[in-house]
Amino acid sequence: MKSPPSRNEPRQPLRRVVQPRKDALVKRLNRIEGQVRGIARMVTEDRYCVDILIQISALRSALDAVAMQLLEDHTQGCVKNAIRSGDGEAAIAELMEVMRKFAR
Amino acid sequence: MKSPPSRNEPRQPLRRVVQPRKDALVKRLNRIEGQVRGIARMVTEDRYCVDILIQISALRSALDAVAMQLLEDHTQGCVKNAIRSGDGEAAIAELMEVMRKFAR
Amino acid sequence: MKSPPSRNEPRQPLRRVVQPRKDALVKRLNRIEGQVRGIARMVTEDRYCVDILIQISALRSALDAVAMQLLEDHTQGCVKNAIRSGDGEAAIAELMEVMRKFAR
Amino acid sequence: MKSPPSRNEPRQPLRRVVQPRKDALVKRLNRIEGQVRGIARMVTEDRYCVDILIQISALRSALDAVAMQLLEDHTQGCVKNAIRSGDGEAAIAELMEVMRKFAR
Repeated sequence: MKSPPSRNEPRQPLRRVVQPRKDALVKRLNRIEGQVRGIARMVTEDRYCVDILIQISALRSALDAVAMQLLEDHTQGCVKNAIRSGDGEAAIAELMEVMRKFAR
Repeated sequence: MKSPPSRNEPRQPLRRVVQPRKDALVKRLNRIEGQVRGIARMVTEDRYCVDILIQISALRSALDAVAMQLLEDHTQGCVKNAIRSGDGEAAIAELMEVMRKFAR
Repeated sequence: MKSPPSRNEPRQPLRRVVQPRKDALVKRLNRIEGQVRGIARMVTEDRYCVDILIQISALRSALDAVAMQLLEDHTQGCVKNAIRSGDGEAAIAELMEVMRKFAR
Repeated sequence: MKSPPSRNEPRQPLRRVVQPRKDALVKRLNRIEGQVRGIARMVTEDRYCVDILIQISALRSALDAVAMQLLEDHTQGCVKNAIRSGDGEAAIAELMEVMRKFAR
C-alpha cells in the first residue's frame, strides 16, 4: 500500500468514490455502532462471558457482510473501469491485497 | 445453547460474571465504537473503497483481540471453576461451541 | 454456482484453463499432501495434541497460500478477459462467490 | 511455546497422548490426503480455476473439522486433567495459544 507521503512531498488529493449503495451502507454501519455499544453495556452489567462472546460473533458477521458488499461494489466499479481503461494489472494487485486481509 | 424459555417456563435469572479486566474491555469497546463511526463517515465522505476496507480490516482485528481476551478470561475463570467443581463436561462443550464461532 | 446438469440436459464440456504457474502449484500441492500424511502419522504415533494442532495450522496456511495464488491468477486472467470482452458482470459475481468461501 | 532445545540441553522425551477417536481421525486425514491429490490432478488437467478453488474450500472445511475435534478432545482430556491436578494455568495458556492460531 502507499506509504504515508513524506513531509515535503505534495499530499496526493484523496481519491473520491461515491458508493452505489451508500445510504444502505451507512445505515448498516450505524446499526453496527449500536451493537458495539450494546456489547460494552453487557460487560458493564457483568453479563455472562459466553452471552457477550455470542454477540461479538454476530457483530463480526455483520461487519463481514459490509466488507463483502464494499468489495463487490469496488470490483464491479473501480476495478472493472481500470481494466477497461487498460490499467487492470495495478487495480487487480490492489484488489488481491485487500482480499488477503479478509481471507482466513 | 439453551433454547429461549417457553412462555410459561419461569425465566432463568441472568448469569452474572464480573470480568477480571472489565474497565480495559469497556475502554477497548468504546474505541471500537469510535472506529465504526469513523468508517461510516468515510462512506459518507465518498472516500476510496480500498481505504475504507483497510479500516474495516483493522476494526476486525481489534474486535478479534477483545473476543480472545474474553475467551481466555472465561476459560481461566468459569471453565476452570466448573472443572474443579466436577461440572467440566458441560463447560467445555459450551467453550468449544463458542470457539467454533470464532474459528475460521 | 451452476447446479448439476439434469439427466437429459447435454453435459456442458468441462471448461479448461492452463494455470500460468501450473508446475509450481502442483509441486506445492504435492508438498501439502506429504504434510497431511505426516499429520496422520503423528496421530498414529500418539503425539501430543498441541503438536499435531500446530502442524494442522501450518498446513492450513500453506493451503491458503495456494488458494490466494489461484485466486490472483484467475482474476488477472479469466476475470480480466471476461471484462474486456464485455462479460464482466457474471465473472465478477462468480469471483465474489469464491471470495466469500475464503473470507473469514 | 517451548523453544527448540539447545544442542547440549537433554532432549525432552516426546509427550505421548492416545487420541480417544484415533482411528476416526486417521481415516479422516487419509481422506483429506486423497482430496489434496485430487486437487493436484485438477491443476494438472487444466480444470477451471473456480472449480479447483471450490474443492480447496471444501478441503479446508474438512481440515477445520479435524482440528476442532482434536481441540475438543484435548480440552476434555489434557486440559481438564491439568486443571484437576492443580496445573490449570499453563494448560489454559497453551490452549489459548492454539485457539488463536485457529481463530479468524
